[in-house]
Formats: sequence, structure tokens, C-alpha cells
Amino acid sequence: MNTQRKRDFLKMGMGAIAGAGLAACGSADADDNSKPAFVLVHGAWHAAWCYERVIPLLAAYGHAAVARDLPAHGINARFPASYFQRPLNPAAFATEPSPAAVTTLDDYAKSVLDTIDQVRALGHDKVVLVGHSMGGVAITAAAERAPEKIHRLVYLTAFMPKTGVPAISYIQSPENQGELVGPQLLADPAAIGALRMDQRSADANYRANGKLAFYGDVSQQDYDAVANLLTPDVPVAPFATPITLTPERWGALDRHYIRCARDMAIRPPLQQRFIAEADAFVPARKTTVHMLDTSHSPFMSAPQQLADLLHAIAG
Amino acid sequence: MNTQRKRDFLKMGMGAIAGAGLAACGSADADDNSKPAFVLVHGAWHAAWCYERVIPLLAAYGHAAVARDLPAHGINARFPASYFQRPLNPAAFATEPSPAAVTTLDDYAKSVLDTIDQVRALGHDKVVLVGHSMGGVAITAAAERAPEKIHRLVYLTAFMPKTGVPAISYIQSPENQGELVGPQLLADPAAIGALRMDQRSADANYRANGKLAFYGDVSQQDYDAVANLLTPDVPVAPFATPITLTPERWGALDRHYIRCARDMAIRPPLQQRFIAEADAFVPARKTTVHMLDTSHSPFMSAPQQLADLLHAIAG
Repeated sequence: MNTQRKRDFLKMGMGAIAGAGLAACGSADADDNSKPAFVLVHGAWHAAWCYERVIPLLAAYGHAAVARDLPAHGINARFPASYFQRPLNPAAFATEPSPAAVTTLDDYAKSVLDTIDQVRALGHDKVVLVGHSMGGVAITAAAERAPEKIHRLVYLTAFMPKTGVPAISYIQSPENQGELVGPQLLADPAAIGALRMDQRSADANYRANGKLAFYGDVSQQDYDAVANLLTPDVPVAPFATPITLTPERWGALDRHYIRCARDMAIRPPLQQRFIAEADAFVPARKTTVHMLDTSHSPFMSAPQQLADLLHAIAG
Repeated sequence: MNTQRKRDFLKMGMGAIAGAGLAACGSADADDNSKPAFVLVHGAWHAAWCYERVIPLLAAYGHAAVARDLPAHGINARFPASYFQRPLNPAAFATEPSPAAVTTLDDYAKSVLDTIDQVRALGHDKVVLVGHSMGGVAITAAAERAPEKIHRLVYLTAFMPKTGVPAISYIQSPENQGELVGPQLLADPAAIGALRMDQRSADANYRANGKLAFYGDVSQQDYDAVANLLTPDVPVAPFATPITLTPERWGALDRHYIRCARDMAIRPPLQQRFIAEADAFVPARKTTVHMLDTSHSPFMSAPQQLADLLHAIAG
């Protein structure tokens, strides 16, 4: 850009914005604080941003809602150096150990519990804990540790692993046939310590499959914004760590599962298996099942429906 | 990854996580809701994620804090097609019209006011409105429209443009000499309707300058996570639109400016000019000035100091 163009540009004026009239001044309702508040936990490769469209809709119902980046996600992400080399060196990308591999399920659980503590300290007695996808593992671990801090537990097309069974063992189960996430992994998780994708792939098929796997029902525009925020490496350890659950702690919580009918990441039969296993573990307290006719990502494709449902669940 | 490796991996177990003991159950403090709450507005190329480390620290002080992605940012970002072509075609990238160009200052102001309304509707009477960098333009427009909804106004090394003067006119002022953002722009803003950067550049110098411009005092690891979340196109219109301010509305608010001593994007003399102009416009209510010894991005490099300061400002 040459200097003259810059000068012309800097001289540009596009009309003044006049101050609008006095807006209505809503009075604060002291009772609002008794409404349940949400802690929203994202899934793998994602971060707090995925709830961006849902949080204001929950606020419209009077619910405070907080989403945070888990360790190794979002602002806490760690990258293999080979990710920044373009064109990608597939051999290097397939073998470089992940700097995210140090992150454990314990780290996730602590992060979730810290957020719950913060929300409670702000005066919200009733915390509804929501986990999406891999976030289901994080909320399961957190709920077993501190059920007394949780009002309700919501699995949003999430991993809800059986006691003692690592989440990873469900991924290639018969119930998950047809899932589209596996083919996106470009390295051996056991070797590098992470589930690794190339979110910046120049391969049109790879990019299209990534959208189909997670976001089949959102616009390409929205998906471009999402894909820009995804990160490549998700630590293996939290997926591979079994959680010991008890009917008296995790099992005592009011438990909800939101099934997503067109999910290509966690297939509907796998969602059903999670529910069946949980109900067999705690027969006295069955999972309350809800349904959305969406992809894996209703927070983007159907945020209002999701907010309506979460509000109904919160009570 | 071959099938056997996948099977081996899926069989992996990494030890059970035992449920921790009963955690202390903090009682909710009904008075907390009277503490000021924060609405945190991000700058150009950034989004709500930049406050990720500050929000929990404000919560520890008892302050609710909400950050949202402005239009054309974060989850709302829009991308030129040429951004996804690697290696980059510099000529195409320099000339492709920006799909973000439709976004206006009015859109920003509405977004900020919507967020304020949501926070107030959740029972927070006192909203401290914080704007970082370009976010200063958004909060200035919002504050002139609805000062009655705002408890205090905080400019975090932000644009605080004089009445009738578009923010863009300050960028190349003598007071901003030495700024490192301008050289990062790879297209003529007036021609494409956006301030365009290549956040995925393969040019090591370009990447290093980008870090120096905004994040000179954070680790390379942290910067990699940040840079992954940045977006290329920031709409020109909000920068180029002058705001008509009045002493009775914008000027009546308790106004704070946090100067950042090592800022290479909005240089310290420009920060001082903003303050001097505001004080000349509203001599009866001077800006309260605070200082941090940081780069442009204390939310990443000194989050605790920033939270301490914001808490002190909120009162």
C-alpha cells in the first residue's frame, strides 16, 4: 500500500454516528441470582468460543453461563512446530511428539471444578454442568469428585463413559460405525501423545470431511470461522484414563443426555449405548433423554433450540 | 496409522482417577451481586478469548465478567477466499474485497449494548465497561448512546477518539511514531474495506513483527496459541466513522485510562494524546490514569496485575 493511498484512506470520513435516545433502564431483579447458572465445557479441538452464540440466549432466560478454555485448548493450546510449516510435511506432522501430551484428565477436572467454584463464589448456588463431546469426560471426572457442587449434569452428545472404561475405547466400537473423525487423525495418538488433525489443510477433501464430521448443518461461512479457531493437538491421556464412578456420587446427580440425531462424530447408536450403560449402573436414577435433529454441533447450527432445551433442563 | 496400532492404542489404560474427597462447600454470598460486573470488549483481529486469563481472576475478586466476540471477529469472522490458499498469492490477498467490510460502528455499538443489557438483566446494576485497543471505539460509541447503563468506563491502551475525529486518523499521527502494526497490513484498507493481515504467514520476519507489535512480552508458546486464534480482516468502517460525543453523556461518565508503557501498537505518546484531548473536552471530569509496564496485551502478559487494577477501578 503506497503512502498516498494510506493518506487518502486516513482522511476518509464516513459520516458521524449520532447518539441514540435514552434507552430504557431495566431494573435489576434481585431474585435472578437464584436461577441456575451454567458451566459449559467444550469438546476436543474446540474451546470456550463454541458457546458464543448460546450464552446470550441463556442470559435472555436469566441464566448466567460461563465457558472456559480447558488446558491444552484455545488460549492454552500447544502446537507441534511442524504445524506451522507450509506446505505441510506429512511425515514430520505424523511423528512429532505433541507438546500437549503432558495434559491429564486430572488437569481437566481441576479446571472444571475451578470454574464451578468461581461461579458459585459469584453467588450462584445451582450450577448446571454441561459437557459437549470430549467435555463429557471432563464433567464426569469433575462430578464424581464434587457432586455436592453440581445441581444437574448435562451430556451434550458427549462421552459418558462407564466406570473404569476409558473414553477412547468407545471411539471405534460397533455403535460408532460411520463416524468421520477417525480418518481426520494424521498421526498415531499413542506415539505422539495427542489426537492430531491439520486444521489448516490445503486438501479440499480433508477440509470437507472435517466439516461433515462436526458441522454438517452449518453454513460454509460459519464453518470457516470455526475452523480458524480449532487447534491441532488434543492430549490423549484424558481420553485414555478410566474414571472410577460411584452410584453415590456421580450416580446421585440428576443426569441428562441431549442426543443429536445427525451426529457424525459420536453416532446416535453410541449415544444410546452411553445412556444404556449409565442407566444399568444407576437403575434407580435413569438418564433423562432429549433429542435435537442436528449435527455434532448444535451450539452453532441450532443455538436457540439448544438454549431452549438447556433452560428447560435447568428448571 | 495402521489398524493394529489403533487397536493397541484403544486398549491403552493409564490408571484410574480416584474420586477426591468432599470439597469444601462455599456458601453463596447474596451481597456479591452488588459488586460491579465487567463487560470486556476486545480489540481488532482479536475476540473474547483474549480475556480468558483475566476473567477467572476478576471472579476471584467477586466480579462477574463477560466478554463477547464483536461482529466480524472470532466466531463472527469472515474471511477472504485467498486467505485459505497456501502458499499465499500476495496479489490476490492484496486486492480481494473483504467480506467483513459490511460491518459498521453501529453494529459494534449494538453488540456492546446488547451485552450490557444481558449483564444488567442478570442482576448486575453496576457495569464497568472496558475496551482494549480498537474496542475503545466500540465502547465510546456505546457510552454516548447509553451512559445510564454504565458505571465506569475503562480504556485499556485503547482508542479514545475525540468527538468528530475517526479513530483511523490517529494511527499515523506523530504521537504514534514507531508503531509496528502498519507494516503488517497487506492490502489497501480503502480498496478492500478491511485492515488485512496474514495471521498464517510463512515469513518468519512477518510473524516476529506481529508478535513484537502486540505481544512483545509473552512467551513464544503463548503467542502461538494467540496467533492461531487471530483473524485476518477487520472492517474499516468502525475505524473510519467519527463519533459525536457530548460532555453530558459520554463526558459525564467516570473515565479511566490504563496506559501500557511498552506498547508498540498504540504508542505511549498517543495514549497521552487521547487523555489530553478527553480532558480538554471535559475539563470538569479528568481521566483517571493508571499505568502498566507491559506490551499492548497485558491480559496475556500480566493478567494478575490487570485484574488487580480493574478491581481497584471498579471500587
